[in-house]
Amino acid sequence: MKLVVAVVQDKDSNFLQQALVDENYHATKLASTGGFLRSGNTTFIIGTEDHQVDALLELIKEHCHSRNQVISPISSLDANADGYMMHPVEVEVGGATVFVLDVDQFKHF
Amino acid sequence: MKLVVAVVQDKDSNFLQQALVDENYHATKLASTGGFLRSGNTTFIIGTEDHQVDALLELIKEHCHSRNQVISPISSLDANADGYMMHPVEVEVGGATVFVLDVDQFKHF
Amino acid sequence: MKLVVAVVQDKDSNFLQQALVDENYHATKLASTGGFLRSGNTTFIIGTEDHQVDALLELIKEHCHSRNQVISPISSLDANADGYMMHPVEVEVGGATVFVLDVDQFKHF
Ligand code: NI
Ligand code: NI
Ligand code: NI
Repeated sequence: MKLVVAVVQDKDSNFLQQALVDENYHATKLASTGGFLRSGNTTFIIGTEDHQVDALLELIKEHCHSRNQVISPISSLDANADGYMMHPVEVEVGGATVFVLDVDQFKHF
Repeated sequence: MKLVVAVVQDKDSNFLQQALVDENYHATKLASTGGFLRSGNTTFIIGTEDHQVDALLELIKEHCHSRNQVISPISSLDANADGYMMHPVEVEVGGATVFVLDVDQFKHF
Repeated sequence: MKLVVAVVQDKDSNFLQQALVDENYHATKLASTGGFLRSGNTTFIIGTEDHQVDALLELIKEHCHSRNQVISPISSLDANADGYMMHPVEVEVGGATVFVLDVDQFKHF
């Protein structure tokens, strides 16, 4: 038995949550405050058999991977404004940090 | 030293919380959102000496075990309605999923 | 790789959070409800390399240690009241409980 702790960027957490439900994983979502060190994370804890760890990691990777996204800043300038150039900005979104922990004992009551 | 992670059904969490306080366990309750994968869980993390793990598991088992409960659906049909039978429904409530983790180092500052 | 779970008294959690950000630790703050067993804790989970564990524990100790604080009860008695002595009260504030866990696998997607 392993306990998988996955800190998932908010952008990806709903996709992962749905996938975990679909695949019948025993997952729990821990609440986050706005006060996250890296804003917008959700923490999942997922109990899983040793032989399912690789499949679970693959599932997380599939639904949560950091990638660059081009964001167009919303201009508040009207058509006649000059002197400002609004360039699209590339930012990194998504991704997950995952810790797999050994479980000494597992019980279900 | 062990770290016990207990995901407890909301129906049982208040009973367990009181029992943990009564027995002087060093327990912390992590907040949950409504967005739990299985709705209505509370996660406790509890630090405990190796020789107390069995007693703690027993305490959790005693206060959190899944059982069936018969629920009578509230009928919105008036006395004259026909064609619908409202049967009591049996649902599973309560219970806990518990992971016992080895602790490499424990510090209290 | 280690996963450090730190339950920190609220009085100290902002100081620790700032220090973790300043030192570039990969830390996540788990939300707490008012329903904590010991009121006013915040739980951090922090992934760290084995050789950085001592430095991290030192950082936590530096920013979170329990100490006594003298609190003067606010008297609602007016200057002419007699029969009541308002003594300053010494209470313990701050501190952290820290669990260092071995990590079987660590992934970043
Ligand atoms: Ni999907
Ligand atoms: Ni009881
Ligand atoms: Ni500082």
